[in-house]
Amino acid sequence: MDDRLEIGGVQLDSRLFIGTGKYGDDALIPAVAEASGAQVITVALRRVDLGAPTGNVMDHIPSGMRLLPNTSGARTAEEAVRIARLARAAGCGDWIKIEVISDSRHLLPDGYETARVTEILAKEGFVVLPYMNPDLYVARTLADAGAAAVMPLGAPIGTNRGLRTKEMIAILIDDQRLPVIVDAGLGRPSQACEAMEMGAAACLVNTGIASSADPVRMARAFGDAVRAGREAFLAGAGATRTTASASSPLTGFLEARP
Amino acid sequence: MDDRLEIGGVQLDSRLFIGTGKYGDDALIPAVAEASGAQVITVALRRVDLGAPTGNVMDHIPSGMRLLPNTSGARTAEEAVRIARLARAAGCGDWIKIEVISDSRHLLPDGYETARVTEILAKEGFVVLPYMNPDLYVARTLADAGAAAVMPLGAPIGTNRGLRTKEMIAILIDDQRLPVIVDAGLGRPSQACEAMEMGAAACLVNTGIASSADPVRMARAFGDAVRAGREAFLAGAGATRTTASASSPLTGFLEARP
Amino acid sequence: MDDRLEIGGVQLDSRLFIGTGKYGDDALIPAVAEASGAQVITVALRRVDLGAPTGNVMDHIPSGMRLLPNTSGARTAEEAVRIARLARAAGCGDWIKIEVISDSRHLLPDGYETARVTEILAKEGFVVLPYMNPDLYVARTLADAGAAAVMPLGAPIGTNRGLRTKEMIAILIDDQRLPVIVDAGLGRPSQACEAMEMGAAACLVNTGIASSADPVRMARAFGDAVRAGREAFLAGAGATRTTASASSPLTGFLEARP
Amino acid sequence: MDDRLEIGGVQLDSRLFIGTGKYGDDALIPAVAEASGAQVITVALRRVDLGAPTGNVMDHIPSGMRLLPNTSGARTAEEAVRIARLARAAGCGDWIKIEVISDSRHLLPDGYETARVTEILAKEGFVVLPYMNPDLYVARTLADAGAAAVMPLGAPIGTNRGLRTKEMIAILIDDQRLPVIVDAGLGRPSQACEAMEMGAAACLVNTGIASSADPVRMARAFGDAVRAGREAFLAGAGATRTTASASSPLTGFLEARP
Repeated sequence: MDDRLEIGGVQLDSRLFIGTGKYGDDALIPAVAEASGAQVITVALRRVDLGAPTGNVMDHIPSGMRLLPNTSGARTAEEAVRIARLARAAGCGDWIKIEVISDSRHLLPDGYETARVTEILAKEGFVVLPYMNPDLYVARTLADAGAAAVMPLGAPIGTNRGLRTKEMIAILIDDQRLPVIVDAGLGRPSQACEAMEMGAAACLVNTGIASSADPVRMARAFGDAVRAGREAFLAGAGATRTTASASSPLTGFLEARP
Repeated sequence: MDDRLEIGGVQLDSRLFIGTGKYGDDALIPAVAEASGAQVITVALRRVDLGAPTGNVMDHIPSGMRLLPNTSGARTAEEAVRIARLARAAGCGDWIKIEVISDSRHLLPDGYETARVTEILAKEGFVVLPYMNPDLYVARTLADAGAAAVMPLGAPIGTNRGLRTKEMIAILIDDQRLPVIVDAGLGRPSQACEAMEMGAAACLVNTGIASSADPVRMARAFGDAVRAGREAFLAGAGATRTTASASSPLTGFLEARP
Repeated sequence: MDDRLEIGGVQLDSRLFIGTGKYGDDALIPAVAEASGAQVITVALRRVDLGAPTGNVMDHIPSGMRLLPNTSGARTAEEAVRIARLARAAGCGDWIKIEVISDSRHLLPDGYETARVTEILAKEGFVVLPYMNPDLYVARTLADAGAAAVMPLGAPIGTNRGLRTKEMIAILIDDQRLPVIVDAGLGRPSQACEAMEMGAAACLVNTGIASSADPVRMARAFGDAVRAGREAFLAGAGATRTTASASSPLTGFLEARP
Repeated sequence: MDDRLEIGGVQLDSRLFIGTGKYGDDALIPAVAEASGAQVITVALRRVDLGAPTGNVMDHIPSGMRLLPNTSGARTAEEAVRIARLARAAGCGDWIKIEVISDSRHLLPDGYETARVTEILAKEGFVVLPYMNPDLYVARTLADAGAAAVMPLGAPIGTNRGLRTKEMIAILIDDQRLPVIVDAGLGRPSQACEAMEMGAAACLVNTGIASSADPVRMARAFGDAVRAGREAFLAGAGATRTTASASSPLTGFLEARP
């Protein structure tokens, strides 16, 4: 199968991205990562003790994975820029997921500030993946600013509420040439599967896995579901009908027998 | 993984059942079956030319699969009973999916007639899997009558409308010791995935696969999705929250730095 | 407006039916009834102390309303028949809402028993309104047995979960000549409104009103919503479009000005 | 009832706003307006022939209604500002609904441009009601810029798709002190009713009424539904339960009888 997702010049076979937050024990992360099949993993830079030789979330990230540091905790463009530069300087690579959130109740991303960061960091050579509210114009602004993908939310962070913004995500997918990666809110594999069926390029799932009673098993479930949704998108779903339609002709079975 | 579904004394690894109707070309069936991973395949007995040496839908059913003949076309209990006996006499085995449908517009199953057939055939040693409207009392009656599973519909046959009867299927799952196999209406893998997340024992998908532009690929997608949904059910989904919850502490990143 | 609902030869202007259960204080009932505009009110006969001169729920039922006694508490056809006869003998009239429920967890109606009662009571001259799971064949059986209307549930009793059985209720409305009255589960006026938009003949609401912090106000809300839904059904809703459509031409405003 | 909506110092009894677009015949407008009970009506200024003595959509707007000119057709802040000023100069009053839309496929509002217009016009003394994508930060920006209300969309203009943005509208209502008026996409009264139950301050409906086969009747339906939803919000809906709950005690009816 030759269906790869390209982000920042990197070819990815897996369309599930995972996170590192909310695990009761960070030592679970390698098993979760392996079960999920994910190749990209995001980590909040503030959780990384850049100076510590050990005892760090970074110790638990499998070496083969693409690291996607994020700017969680940033409340302004300036803070996000600073975090991104620190991440790169610390050897975390040039991928960066932008989160600029100044509202602590709903944790929604600030589109205007996010666009500012994106423009600055893209010019500095970062591969910028901005977390965003699914808004057509914000997505276009981010694309113009040099984003490598857009990451609209399905529901507020950590809620497991699913694909509540479906209407607007469908519009972004219709409108954008950039990959649309659904991030936040996906609590069950069926929801990630549906996002993929709609044509999302990938899904990022953190709480949906970490809040499960069995995160490793749930990671495998999300991996399968994302693959299923992608395959279904490529296969093309049949039309939905208003009224029933028999799987085979309804007449003539017993009548036709001698 | 030791999570097998037992039906009529048979252990199944795959929880996706597939059908044989509506394929433009029956020669697609082996590839669909393989891609799906299914171990059980249903066929309308009236589509089987019992006397023909070749040119038959049966020619396309992989030999290793468990055959589930169905009584599609039966309008009364008597017709269904007759079809079931013919199937067994013709060497189709003793599994039988009961469909008794007298309404040709909505193709909904008649619970009362279905219960009658189930009782008769169970006594004759058939492994009876009745297609049904998700109704608590009908399910109990079928269980008492000796059904090996119940097969409630997600939506009318052939509609691809999804899990429209979710409320009642959840109640059957809560109430029944028998496996609850969602049958009919599942048009996209995410819908089958959701049924499995709810605790369904399996899903039967025919139109959802056959009506795809690429049935083989769609079969693989449904296989992955059903597995994902089962894994998620076993893992246990995290709670849904009303308001947002950060993946990691939101304060103190930049402030704490020297 | 000449749009009346006829049940058992009686013309009704209001398509909202109300109940008498779960009010903290039965003395609220007259104000609720007036605010709702309802002309039909159901009461569980077992709540009626047939021998008591006062202190009875019946004391609170406005005299002008059509009484619809119900057989709540009946677990078999025989019990329901006995309750119905007691109700008529006690002067409650010949309308009867059949509830036969033997499952105390989900409180779902038993279709088979309900059909038996309906047949018996219709022959005795009752105006029979059976509460039912929305099942096409059960509805037809009830119609054949002489029911004056069918009363499918929207969701289990007392849940306020809304119109969860929409798919099947639409099929009943498509199939039945009898009035289809949605009963149980409607917790908010928008849900009753939607049922009416689909072509339901009426809605019965009890918990949705009684569980509100202000039942009188909520009763008025349900009355307005049912009327709105009926009007919308008669007016005919416009088509739903996939993509946007401007309310007025989008070009040429400023350009055309000198 | 003392529940009035105040916008720009004006007290409104009706919480339904209507439009003037898409009527086959503008002569229907007075009857629609009367049936709806609306006190506010929006009109696209470009549809107004400011110089014409007759033959104008304005001729059909009832004299007692509050006029809400809108800037439909504006693609930039500058165009919207110009239209607003023209409207006021032409005697249309100082209320203005801002629409800045540069995407002609989805007709979604541009939040950034809308905020610019709002700031300019609020300073000029207009009562500014901006049409917007439901975004927390945009709403706050509009509030800071002096908007009199915010008007988030339920679905793209003219689609009749309903309250697809429910998740985000709930957040705006939770966050905002300004009235939240749901505008666009509401195709059926039940959808407007639901928006009001959630705590929306009002709804603006145009296509939902104009595309009905009987716009006058549909206008009345929307008027009733909006009132119902508001009453339900004020009354407070009862809790939703997962499992059934009897309306009255389920035991002891027949048993207790002698």
